[in-house]
Amino acid sequence: MTVTAPVAETAGAAVPDLSRLSLNTATTKAWTLEQAVVGAVAAGLPAVGLWRDRVAEAGLERSAQIVRDAGLRVSSLCRGGFLTADDDAGRSAALEDNRAAIVEAATLGTSEVIMVVGGLPAATGPNRPPRPGGDKDLVAARGRVADRIGELVPFAAEHGVRLVLEPLHPIFAADRAVLSTLGQCLDMAAPYPAETVGVVVDTYHVWWDPQLQEQIARAGREGRLASYQVCDWNQPIAADPLLSRGFMGDGFIDFPTITRWVAEAGYTGDVEVEIFNQEIWDAPGNQTVATMAERYTELVRPYL
Amino acid sequence: MTVTAPVAETAGAAVPDLSRLSLNTATTKAWTLEQAVVGAVAAGLPAVGLWRDRVAEAGLERSAQIVRDAGLRVSSLCRGGFLTADDDAGRSAALEDNRAAIVEAATLGTSEVIMVVGGLPAATGPNRPPRPGGDKDLVAARGRVADRIGELVPFAAEHGVRLVLEPLHPIFAADRAVLSTLGQCLDMAAPYPAETVGVVVDTYHVWWDPQLQEQIARAGREGRLASYQVCDWNQPIAADPLLSRGFMGDGFIDFPTITRWVAEAGYTGDVEVEIFNQEIWDAPGNQTVATMAERYTELVRPYL
Repeated sequence: MTVTAPVAETAGAAVPDLSRLSLNTATTKAWTLEQAVVGAVAAGLPAVGLWRDRVAEAGLERSAQIVRDAGLRVSSLCRGGFLTADDDAGRSAALEDNRAAIVEAATLGTSEVIMVVGGLPAATGPNRPPRPGGDKDLVAARGRVADRIGELVPFAAEHGVRLVLEPLHPIFAADRAVLSTLGQCLDMAAPYPAETVGVVVDTYHVWWDPQLQEQIARAGREGRLASYQVCDWNQPIAADPLLSRGFMGDGFIDFPTITRWVAEAGYTGDVEVEIFNQEIWDAPGNQTVATMAERYTELVRPYL
Repeated sequence: MTVTAPVAETAGAAVPDLSRLSLNTATTKAWTLEQAVVGAVAAGLPAVGLWRDRVAEAGLERSAQIVRDAGLRVSSLCRGGFLTADDDAGRSAALEDNRAAIVEAATLGTSEVIMVVGGLPAATGPNRPPRPGGDKDLVAARGRVADRIGELVPFAAEHGVRLVLEPLHPIFAADRAVLSTLGQCLDMAAPYPAETVGVVVDTYHVWWDPQLQEQIARAGREGRLASYQVCDWNQPIAADPLLSRGFMGDGFIDFPTITRWVAEAGYTGDVEVEIFNQEIWDAPGNQTVATMAERYTELVRPYL
C-alpha cells in the first residue's frame, strides 16, 4: 500500500521516527494477534503486517476490530499462493484458499495479499509414487502459477485487493516458490493492472540479485511496488533456512543501499520487519520490537 | 573446452556412451590425483576435471605426466578466483594466485580455469574489527571482480588460457561468489575475447534461474560456453550448503531440460560431474564413478 505517513508529531532530535515501521506478526511469533497489536501500539508503531494463522485464531471480524480500535494500519496480509499443484484437486483447493485470503484482506482493511507461489510438485506434493521428470519441470510449474494468477485477478479486483507476488530466495525454489527474482515477478504481473498484481521487495530474498536496482526502479515505474519487508541474511545458514533471517545489521545485507533504491523508486508505504528466527522468537516480544525499531532507525529510516 | 568427441568405438545398444563424461576430482575426494586418473580410465571415461589441491599434492609436472600417460583430456582446472579483497595486500595475493593457476592450467593441458570469484569482505576477509556498511557493499565487490578480471586477461591470453566465470547459487553470495547468475557473468565477460573469458553452467548453481534458457543460448552464441558441470540440488540442505550436491536424479533438478538447452547452444565439450557430498565421499571411489556414469547415461547423455 502507498501511504504517505506524516512524521510523528512527537518527533524531534532524540525521538525516532517510526511513522512507517510495521510489525509483521511472524516476528513476534509467541504473541497472539491482540498481543502484537498491543505491543506495536506500546512501541509507537503505526502498522502491523498480519499472518492468516494469527487472524484465524482470533477470528476474522474480531481481528479487524482489534486493529481498527487500536488505530493501526494493516500493511499486508501474509499470505496467499501455493499455486503449483499439477492435479485438479490441488488446483481447486489452492484457488479456493486464495479467494478466502482475498476476502480476509478486504475485511482487515489491507489491499495487499502477499503471494508465496509454491514450489515443485516433486518437493511439495502429496505422498505419491515418484514420477521422474514431470514433477521437476520448473518451467511448467511457473506456467501454472501464471495461469492461476490470471484466474484469481478478477476476484481480487472485485474486492479491491492486490495479489503481491513475492520472489523468494532461490534456496526455496524447489519447495516454496518457483518465483525467484523481482524481474520474473514483474514479467508475470505485466498483463494485469498495477492495482491488482504487484510485487514485494523482501531484502532477505532479493539482496543478492545483480538486477535488483533496475528491477526495483521498474517496479516503481510500473506502480507495482506494494510492500517493502526488511530483515537480514544471517550466516551460517540455519538448519531450516527459513529461520536464517535476522535483525537488520546482524547479517550481510547492505540496507542503506537497497533502501535508497526503494525510496528512489517512489515507495512511500510502510516498512515491515518480518523475521523468522528461533532465538528471536524465544526472546520477550517487547524486547524484539525495541531492537527492530532501533535497527530500523539506524539502518533503514535515514535512507527512505 | 569444445571437443567434438567421437562416439566410443565400442558403443552399441548395451554399451553406454561415456565419450564426453569427465570425472571432477572433487567427486572422489578420498582419491589422489593418480587414483582418480586410474579410476576414470578403469570406468572408460575420457577426461578428468582437476582441483589444484590434488595437483599440488602430486606435483604439477608429475600431474601433467600422469594425465598425459593415461591418455585423458583435462576438461578444466578448479579453481582460480577470490578476487574481492578490498585491500592492496589481498588484491596482490589474489592476482598472484590466479597467475599461478593460469600457468598450471597451461602445463596440465587445459584451456579452462574455473573462477569462483569470492564473496563480501565482511564474510571472507581477515579477522579485523567490523566496518559496518563498507564491507557489505555488494555493488563495489562486484566492481572489484570486474577490475581484476581485466587485470588478468592479458596474462591468461598469453598462456592460451580462458578465465571461466562461474555463477554460484545465491546462497553463496555473501561468502563465496558475488557472481550469482549466468547473465551477470556474461555481462562481465563481454569486454573481452570469447577465448579468454568464458562461463560455466553448473546445474547446482543455476537450475533455479528464470533466465537460464536464454542466457545459456546467449553463452553459446557468444562462444563463451566453456564447461558444463552436472550434479543435483539435494534437500534438506546440508549443514554446510556446499555439501548439498548429489548424484543426478537424487534431487530436484530437471537434467533433460537443462541439458537440451546446453546442447542447443552448441556445446560439444565434456560434461563434468562435480559432487561435494560427505556420504558420497565416504563411499568407495569406484562405486561413485559407476553411479555417476549410470545417472549420466540415464539423465544427461540422451539429451546432449
